[in-house]
Amino acid sequence: MKNDSMYDLCWSMFKYPRSITGDGVRKTLRHIKEYLPTMNIHEIPSGTKCFDWEVPKEWNCHRAYITCPDGSKICEFKVSNLHVVGYSVPVNDWVTLDELQKHLYSIPDKPDAIPYVTSYYEEKWGFCISDKERDELKEGLYHVYIDSEFKDGSLSYGELIIPGDLSDEIFLSTYICHPSLANDNLSGIAVTTYLAKWIMGLSKQKYTYRIIFVPETIGSIAYLSKYWKQMRQKVIAGFNVTCVGDNLNYSYMPSRNGNTLADMVAQHVLSHLHPEYKTYSFLDRGSDERQYCSPGIDLPVCSIMRSGYKDFPQYHTSWDDLSFISREGLQGGYESLKAAISCIEENWYPKVKILCEPQLGKRGLYPTRGIEGHSKKVRNMMNFLTYCDGLHSILDICNIIDVPMWELSILVETLKDEGIIE
Amino acid sequence: MKNDSMYDLCWSMFKYPRSITGDGVRKTLRHIKEYLPTMNIHEIPSGTKCFDWEVPKEWNCHRAYITCPDGSKICEFKVSNLHVVGYSVPVNDWVTLDELQKHLYSIPDKPDAIPYVTSYYEEKWGFCISDKERDELKEGLYHVYIDSEFKDGSLSYGELIIPGDLSDEIFLSTYICHPSLANDNLSGIAVTTYLAKWIMGLSKQKYTYRIIFVPETIGSIAYLSKYWKQMRQKVIAGFNVTCVGDNLNYSYMPSRNGNTLADMVAQHVLSHLHPEYKTYSFLDRGSDERQYCSPGIDLPVCSIMRSGYKDFPQYHTSWDDLSFISREGLQGGYESLKAAISCIEENWYPKVKILCEPQLGKRGLYPTRGIEGHSKKVRNMMNFLTYCDGLHSILDICNIIDVPMWELSILVETLKDEGIIE
Amino acid sequence: MKNDSMYDLCWSMFKYPRSITGDGVRKTLRHIKEYLPTMNIHEIPSGTKCFDWEVPKEWNCHRAYITCPDGSKICEFKVSNLHVVGYSVPVNDWVTLDELQKHLYSIPDKPDAIPYVTSYYEEKWGFCISDKERDELKEGLYHVYIDSEFKDGSLSYGELIIPGDLSDEIFLSTYICHPSLANDNLSGIAVTTYLAKWIMGLSKQKYTYRIIFVPETIGSIAYLSKYWKQMRQKVIAGFNVTCVGDNLNYSYMPSRNGNTLADMVAQHVLSHLHPEYKTYSFLDRGSDERQYCSPGIDLPVCSIMRSGYKDFPQYHTSWDDLSFISREGLQGGYESLKAAISCIEENWYPKVKILCEPQLGKRGLYPTRGIEGHSKKVRNMMNFLTYCDGLHSILDICNIIDVPMWELSILVETLKDEGIIE
Repeated sequence: MKNDSMYDLCWSMFKYPRSITGDGVRKTLRHIKEYLPTMNIHEIPSGTKCFDWEVPKEWNCHRAYITCPDGSKICEFKVSNLHVVGYSVPVNDWVTLDELQKHLYSIPDKPDAIPYVTSYYEEKWGFCISDKERDELKEGLYHVYIDSEFKDGSLSYGELIIPGDLSDEIFLSTYICHPSLANDNLSGIAVTTYLAKWIMGLSKQKYTYRIIFVPETIGSIAYLSKYWKQMRQKVIAGFNVTCVGDNLNYSYMPSRNGNTLADMVAQHVLSHLHPEYKTYSFLDRGSDERQYCSPGIDLPVCSIMRSGYKDFPQYHTSWDDLSFISREGLQGGYESLKAAISCIEENWYPKVKILCEPQLGKRGLYPTRGIEGHSKKVRNMMNFLTYCDGLHSILDICNIIDVPMWELSILVETLKDEGIIE
Repeated sequence: MKNDSMYDLCWSMFKYPRSITGDGVRKTLRHIKEYLPTMNIHEIPSGTKCFDWEVPKEWNCHRAYITCPDGSKICEFKVSNLHVVGYSVPVNDWVTLDELQKHLYSIPDKPDAIPYVTSYYEEKWGFCISDKERDELKEGLYHVYIDSEFKDGSLSYGELIIPGDLSDEIFLSTYICHPSLANDNLSGIAVTTYLAKWIMGLSKQKYTYRIIFVPETIGSIAYLSKYWKQMRQKVIAGFNVTCVGDNLNYSYMPSRNGNTLADMVAQHVLSHLHPEYKTYSFLDRGSDERQYCSPGIDLPVCSIMRSGYKDFPQYHTSWDDLSFISREGLQGGYESLKAAISCIEENWYPKVKILCEPQLGKRGLYPTRGIEGHSKKVRNMMNFLTYCDGLHSILDICNIIDVPMWELSILVETLKDEGIIE
Repeated sequence: MKNDSMYDLCWSMFKYPRSITGDGVRKTLRHIKEYLPTMNIHEIPSGTKCFDWEVPKEWNCHRAYITCPDGSKICEFKVSNLHVVGYSVPVNDWVTLDELQKHLYSIPDKPDAIPYVTSYYEEKWGFCISDKERDELKEGLYHVYIDSEFKDGSLSYGELIIPGDLSDEIFLSTYICHPSLANDNLSGIAVTTYLAKWIMGLSKQKYTYRIIFVPETIGSIAYLSKYWKQMRQKVIAGFNVTCVGDNLNYSYMPSRNGNTLADMVAQHVLSHLHPEYKTYSFLDRGSDERQYCSPGIDLPVCSIMRSGYKDFPQYHTSWDDLSFISREGLQGGYESLKAAISCIEENWYPKVKILCEPQLGKRGLYPTRGIEGHSKKVRNMMNFLTYCDGLHSILDICNIIDVPMWELSILVETLKDEGIIE
């Protein structure tokens, strides 16, 4: 077990050549396993049917570059794995600039950014380049070289089950397929890893945790195709962990249903910790909630994010590097998700055991004389108790009385110990 | 079948002396029947009980005028049928100006407008006159002459049933009792006639159509008293067609329930085609929705209108003439109702046949590589599919994803053909 | 029976040394009984268990004062019963100013106000004094003297049951424990007394009335512990009558549920009579609704108030004296509660007996000719009828059509007499 930070974890895995399959993913999973030794790494063979999909051939890129007419090398894969379009077929050819242009991807609006492009399901090859560098290319013959390989291999993913008192599950999912992009989604990998570490360190927890590290889309679909029936029965709340590393904003992507326990908790946590947070529409979705919330699957999964995907200019470009995320950013994402999980762990339906208001004075819980109204603490206690009717959960009550759940933890324990609520 | 327009239809029927009974109504119905040969014209005899009401005696006015002291004739029925109070009893007398004044109706605020006044259920006679002309009347003896006739006749209405694949019905009702008033309600007659023509020209339609042309209030009550039981079972949506001819505004009068399929569709259509439309309260109702939505009848009937009744200064005056309506105005009313009917025809509850997102790439429905997000078309498709859970109708989904139903027609067909939804 | 006013009643009882038990309460109840001879005065012995509580010893204070070093007497109980902390233990001692200060209560922000302080459940003694007078106290020895007595006595309350046609009950509760404070709550006592007089004077009433005068908190708890089971079955609406005497504001404290008949009626009445009224949150509660609305009791009890408790600067100080309340203030509180009770008495679920609109003309209820729309009265009638579907109460309908219930009383009777509704 390393003694480093979430940021360091991002830093050390930044260069791994991740894709939806291949050795970059495996290397990433093995790195995570150093932190979470009980995590299992699974492989699903190429060609396996997963609902409407099929696990593709495994792709690995060993080397790639373009040699310019003047002999200089550009778009070197070893410099940045963003330079090669994901799942490019091999090529080793001499082409004119005109021909080359058909295989180049850049963003005119962001002249110094290398875009992130993939082509998983159409056979092609291509290079990603900054628009500025592209503009400077001269006429002449270019040597294009991609030493990539497709094979009947497998899709890799990590799965960690942490048993709790109940078989009901809290589900965490993050994706491991994006190459050198930091907020999207090394941040999600790092925060999920540290959340798992924290949960494993708890003396006891009520719920069982299902935590997975999968390639986006095909990975979550493949995983669901194996486990969706039991997950539908067991998962009471889940979070797709993504874009939790920058220090700019907080945001919330609802589940399709919009009103699940996960949604309620996410909104509760963010409204108290970061009331300026942005709420997206499910129509803006773009990550694995697309699968988890699809009709017939309908898992209660939402996302607590920092700057949401697609909504920051660095998104899917080389700008989303280690300078865009920060220790503070990661910590903020981590703390929010931790608070959400804690709220679920501590949520239940309290019911007063006493008709009318309890006599709190004789229990030392109430000021014995009243002048100028009660303190906020006493108001919270009285307000809390008046909704302990067995119909409102602690979370519901906290929303009604506008107090964060964590501020009432001790109070709830006390009231339980005093036999006032059950 | 004539080859003319809705406006021409209004023009040719403008002068017919319509009332709730009589030959003016029959002439109007026969004129409509030229366009809709399969429409049946029915007669309900005077004295027939209809719930709390009774079909009144049939009224016809043959001639009417006032001769002034100077021998000039005013308020001639043949000049404008608005001049005679509807259901005036016959009179042939010489009266002083003072006596005459008790029988004159004018609007001080609208000095050159002849008001539209009726007295169906109280025996009286009267003339409607512009306030300006009234002001100029001199002292003297006036000859008042109304050659009207009451007889045991009948109330006439037209009914057209267009069978569809289902016995479930879409109901259209318009009223034919107003004399020379254009927006209220020759426009409704013309638009309903052309909607019926359009429906009859369709190669096939899912629903059966019940289309009636009735005198307002007593006509709809008489019709309901015969058919309400089967209509309660069959009618899934209906529209009271009125005030659909001016080119100023669009508006919506809800059903009493406010949330029927007809209401949902009316709001969907207007919010996309004419987002500035006005929504009335059911408390502002004033036409046959009063009967269709009455307790115990409870049909899902609302109105899509241009300028709503009572809400334009021309309302119930001679100002509501052929210059107030226009080809564009009628077309706008027609198109909105047509869109509403089409939405109902094309509405159903789609359900994806595939768990998780379908692999659209292999079906050629999805761009094979992603850069800079998806096109609006692809977003619409993905958003549409994510709500195909069998619980949301296409209309519901279109409201959620904020797209007009007609923009998704081809997509829905494609997804059905591809076996993705059912 | 006296021939005086609510204000006079407050005036004559202002000085009675009320507390949660004792002779001041009994004197108050006997005074009320002069107005309501059929009211019963009950006693619950000290030590009686009431849910989580116990009726305390009976407390009476015979005499109390402080003698200053210069021989002058201050804080004399006979001058104002606010000077002695409620439930002070006896004392007869010489103390230094420093020692005395520990037993004095004043409000720096309100220098000339004597605060109202009690200490029911902690044994102590204390005096309440204006901050200004306190500031002027000189060093020296003070003689503190409280001749109070604790004994195994009883808690007193008044109960008046007025039988109606139904055993369903309307519940009124007011509290009688506050000493010389006028708005809080002599006003409540006076208004409740006069409401009871009015109800007893009615020729007949639909509901049975349960009206109680109890000490706050312990009194309502003690009462509930005896009667809660039958009250849960019978009480359809109730009001906690408090702070109804000043002439400044109107306000509404909801029940915990927030949507009971009592709440609906309170909001209906205030929105029409005093549309500027303030709505509190149940979180601001502070009187016996705390017990009536507690989980498991769940009575439909809310409050219609003038200036709400805790929300006027005079609250719980000597400023809340007879000059703060007024005849107009009390009358406004009384009229609002009377209107609320009348609305409940007159509320039922009307249903039209006729399909489609009734022919009102033949019954003389409808203008026989229409020009320029109908009068407001006719609109109200038609709007009322269109919601008489047996699913909406008269109160519901009045809320939909935005008319106060009392304006429709005659109409409802007429429609019933005409056999149009049942």
